[in-house]
Amino acid sequence: MTTGLEDVLVRNASATEVLAPEGQLRPGMVYEVPARQGRAFRLKAGQVARLTNHQGQQVGDFWAFSAEDRREFLSMEHMRPTLRKLTPRPGDALITNKRRALLEMLEDTSPGVHDTLIAACCQHRYTELGHPDPHDNCSDNLRMAMAAIGAPIGEIPCPFNLWMNTPPRADGGIDWLAPVSKPGDYVRLRAVRDAILVLSCCPMDLSPINGDAKSPKGLQVMIEG
Amino acid sequence: MTTGLEDVLVRNASATEVLAPEGQLRPGMVYEVPARQGRAFRLKAGQVARLTNHQGQQVGDFWAFSAEDRREFLSMEHMRPTLRKLTPRPGDALITNKRRALLEMLEDTSPGVHDTLIAACCQHRYTELGHPDPHDNCSDNLRMAMAAIGAPIGEIPCPFNLWMNTPPRADGGIDWLAPVSKPGDYVRLRAVRDAILVLSCCPMDLSPINGDAKSPKGLQVMIEG
Repeated sequence: MTTGLEDVLVRNASATEVLAPEGQLRPGMVYEVPARQGRAFRLKAGQVARLTNHQGQQVGDFWAFSAEDRREFLSMEHMRPTLRKLTPRPGDALITNKRRALLEMLEDTSPGVHDTLIAACCQHRYTELGHPDPHDNCSDNLRMAMAAIGAPIGEIPCPFNLWMNTPPRADGGIDWLAPVSKPGDYVRLRAVRDAILVLSCCPMDLSPINGDAKSPKGLQVMIEG
Repeated sequence: MTTGLEDVLVRNASATEVLAPEGQLRPGMVYEVPARQGRAFRLKAGQVARLTNHQGQQVGDFWAFSAEDRREFLSMEHMRPTLRKLTPRPGDALITNKRRALLEMLEDTSPGVHDTLIAACCQHRYTELGHPDPHDNCSDNLRMAMAAIGAPIGEIPCPFNLWMNTPPRADGGIDWLAPVSKPGDYVRLRAVRDAILVLSCCPMDLSPINGDAKSPKGLQVMIEG
C-alpha cells in the first residue's frame, strides 16, 4: 500500500459528505464536487459520466476502480504502453493495472491537455513546497471519498489529471503551466464495466496549476440520463 | 495492492535463487542477474551500487524500497514532479512515494536514455501482445526476488526502466526502440538510506525493446568496496 491511514490524513468534508448515498447518482442530475475536496460515485457498465470544468482552469485528479475488485484500477503506467501515447484521446480505452479497458473516453471539448505523469498532491508534497502545516490534498481526498461511500482502498494510484498542463519538453524537463481549459469544458467517459469513479478538485494553491490566480475551484459531475 | 499472489505467477529461479543469503552482497564482488530473471539485494546508507549492462542493449527493470518500511519505495510519478524532469540524471536524487530521496544517481556512462513511463511487463501484457501462455515477466520477477530474500511486497510500483528506449514524441505518442546502451555501460547509485534494490532482466522477446535480436540477456550488479 502506497500510503495507509497511519500517515498524516488531512480531513475535510470529503470524509463525511457524499454526492448521494453509496455514490448512487441520479442520472441527469448535476452534482458539484466542492473546491479542495473529492467525491466518489458509481457508474454502471454502459453508463456515461460527464465531468465538467464549469469555471475553467481547475485541475481534476481522477481515478477509477473496478466495482468488482478495487485492486483493479486505472493505471497510467499500464495505459501508456497499451495506447502508445502519453494521454488518452476520444475513442481511446482507459486501461487498468490488469491491462483491461475499464472506461472509454467518448468526448473531450477541451484542447485535450491532460496529465498522466504526476502523482496526486499529498501532505508530503505541500511540505516539500514549503507548507508543512496540514493542507487539503488529492491523495487524502481520494482515500476519504472512497471510504465515505463504503469502498475504502489501500494504495493511491497515479491519477489521470484532467485539464492539468504539465507537458514534457523535448529536453526531458517538465513545464508547470496554467490549464488551457475553458469554462464549461467537459469530458465524457463510458463505463466498459461497473466502476467507481473519484474526482478530486485539486487544492494546489502554491503554483499556477489551477490558473494564474492560484484559486482552487469546484467541478461538476453528471451521469447522462 | 496492484497484483497479489492470487494472480497468475510465472515461476522461474527468481523465486528460489539469491545472489547472496538475505541479499547481503560482498562489496567488490560482481554478481550476475540471469537473463529473464530478477534478484534483490541490500544497500546500506552510503554504499554505492554499480548496475552494469555488460552485454549492452538489455533493459533492466529497477526498483528500490526503504529497508525500514517497504511501503516506501521509489515512485516514478513522485520523482517526476520533484525533479521536474522525466528521467533522472547524474546528481539527481531518486524519490519515493513519501517525496524523500532514497538513492542518488552518481554516474551514468550510457547516453542517459532510460524510461520512467512504462509499467513492468506482466503476464497480462504478454497475453495482450498475443502470448497467452505463461511467460517470464518483470512483475513476477520483482515479487519473487523480494520474497526470496525474506522481504515480500504487496504492490508493484512502476519501475525505473534502465536503458529502456521508449521516448515520448512531441505529438504525445511513444516510440518503442532498441536500447542505445553499449556493452559495459553502467549506472552508479548511492544509498541515502538503507534500501533494498531489485533488478530484473526484462524477458520481453516480442518487441525490439531488448535490441533488434529480441534476445533477453543478463545484467551485473556490484557493491563498490
